[in-house]
Amino acid sequence: MALIDAIREQLTRLRVMPSGLVVAVSGGADSVALLLALTKLRPSPLGGRGDGGEGGEPIVIAHLNHCLRGDESDGDEQFVRQLHADLVNLGARSLELAVARIDVAALAAQSGGNLEATARRERYRWLAETALRFNHSRVATGHTADDQAETVLHRLLRGTGLQGLRGIAVRRELQPGIELIRPMLTATRADVLAFLRENDHSYREDRSNADLTYTRNRIRHELLPLLTANYNQSLVSHLGQLAEQASEVFSELERQAGELLQTCELPPAGPLRILDAVKLARASRQMVREALRLLWQREQWSRDGMTFQDWDRAAAVALGELPAVDLPGRISVRRKGSVVQLGSFHIFTV
Amino acid sequence: MALIDAIREQLTRLRVMPSGLVVAVSGGADSVALLLALTKLRPSPLGGRGDGGEGGEPIVIAHLNHCLRGDESDGDEQFVRQLHADLVNLGARSLELAVARIDVAALAAQSGGNLEATARRERYRWLAETALRFNHSRVATGHTADDQAETVLHRLLRGTGLQGLRGIAVRRELQPGIELIRPMLTATRADVLAFLRENDHSYREDRSNADLTYTRNRIRHELLPLLTANYNQSLVSHLGQLAEQASEVFSELERQAGELLQTCELPPAGPLRILDAVKLARASRQMVREALRLLWQREQWSRDGMTFQDWDRAAAVALGELPAVDLPGRISVRRKGSVVQLGSFHIFTV
Repeated sequence: MALIDAIREQLTRLRVMPSGLVVAVSGGADSVALLLALTKLRPSPLGGRGDGGEGGEPIVIAHLNHCLRGDESDGDEQFVRQLHADLVNLGARSLELAVARIDVAALAAQSGGNLEATARRERYRWLAETALRFNHSRVATGHTADDQAETVLHRLLRGTGLQGLRGIAVRRELQPGIELIRPMLTATRADVLAFLRENDHSYREDRSNADLTYTRNRIRHELLPLLTANYNQSLVSHLGQLAEQASEVFSELERQAGELLQTCELPPAGPLRILDAVKLARASRQMVREALRLLWQREQWSRDGMTFQDWDRAAAVALGELPAVDLPGRISVRRKGSVVQLGSFHIFTV
Repeated sequence: MALIDAIREQLTRLRVMPSGLVVAVSGGADSVALLLALTKLRPSPLGGRGDGGEGGEPIVIAHLNHCLRGDESDGDEQFVRQLHADLVNLGARSLELAVARIDVAALAAQSGGNLEATARRERYRWLAETALRFNHSRVATGHTADDQAETVLHRLLRGTGLQGLRGIAVRRELQPGIELIRPMLTATRADVLAFLRENDHSYREDRSNADLTYTRNRIRHELLPLLTANYNQSLVSHLGQLAEQASEVFSELERQAGELLQTCELPPAGPLRILDAVKLARASRQMVREALRLLWQREQWSRDGMTFQDWDRAAAVALGELPAVDLPGRISVRRKGSVVQLGSFHIFTV
């Protein structure tokens, strides 16, 4: 029951009904368990809620065949088609199926992108399209607390700063009007496997973990088991709480940084963005860094290669500790009297 | 020069002169390097600054013999006495020595406390006393970026939440008027060893690392080397930046939470503390949790055993999501109309 309870609690916190959803189903243990749990959690047509209303909206099983592992990929697709047929035969109502194939390898070669990133981008794009086609506003994926712990550890080891510790978001916008949710994010992989055993349900073993990078695979198969066995049995749930806390802290900081940016921004001078240095100086250094990040995001200035130190040096200029700084992405920040000027490198050099 | 530069930069950021300090010197590599670096960084009497003023105030070498390792402890004490004599003979000015002995094992047995905690408490107490005796307001310890990384990893593995990631503070109050600073917190142990080699200076090997717990020793000798070698060469500095960021974020949050508490607190009703639920509801959940932490701290209610979930459940009552909760430390939180009542368990049960 641990899995069902964890999903129910998460859906309650998200204020989402367990229906009217597109569920991404790869055929692996996690997504199969999510699908089964959601069908069990749907209000019964004989129950108090009746078959009408939101409870009756279909669940869409969505499977994208990435065609990356030949027969094995086709076997996954076949498994998901059969799963849908079996559930319908067993009396599951309002259960739709959406299957598509995409040659990710060819697409990645064409765009010169990396395989993993291309696969993810195409998958989420197709899931959003599928939601639109079925007139649903939500897509659910089967990410677990173990995925969350691996992500947090990965980010920690890469050194992405406190922001990175937010890990996998329990909800985020896929595209305007379509939301991605992770209702299983507080359940562990052990909960998933126990649930499938109890329900005597099969799933496909994903041998290659094609979506996982080499480092990610080592974190999953070596580091996380080592840390759990030798340091803390509850590490997975601790890392999940850390991600939740980091996420809360940063949404609060971002809200405040947004207000700060609004308060401090002066009319642009041609191509330059202008901030009021006197007002900025009243904010904390942390808040100034966040406000600058928001400005970069809004202006679509490249944040590639911007390290913590770079943001901090930009904040140092804004706070009058440094006169000027040139940053990765060819953006410069200059202090000029009581204002801070920001803009493309070449504006300052000509 | 890496070590000298790191210490100089840290002192500049702390706005502290490299003199008029008590330096805690165990005789190990870290503290010996800190002492030597500080004597090198002191303004020269022949330099522009002259011998007067702050630059001329003495550095006090402070060594507390914990008497935990018999002859080895006495050897450490002897080494530090000799270090002081050698430096004075070499022409170091204004270098005082303070040495004391304390039977930590007996003290711990007497108070029933654990050895490590007792040693730390007594050491900092004595260092603060020594500062007072020499009319200094600062004590410096030789904690390095490696110590910081170990602390952050240790807290992460224990699951102390985002707060724990603040790690070792670069400055904190030891007692009113006496500040503890860690000017070497951005320098690595490798920087320390390179500096001692360059200066051809000896130090005592601390074989037992008596101050370190078993887990801490494993993190130092097994986990951190493994993560650095297999995942990220720059992990130590990344974890240091994470600690710095967490520290900044939390000092900002605590400031705001203090304001929130002040805004929301109503006059107490006998032994009960009363908060305005309507005003609390306008704050974020994160902020409510922090405000409650501050209240607990002020009231000296026990925070032992209070997990992240406990703080969160207390916040849930404050935000009207739960009617009441009984917490570890026998403190209860109750929602009553538009106010939140907080106080000792038995007040509510009688």
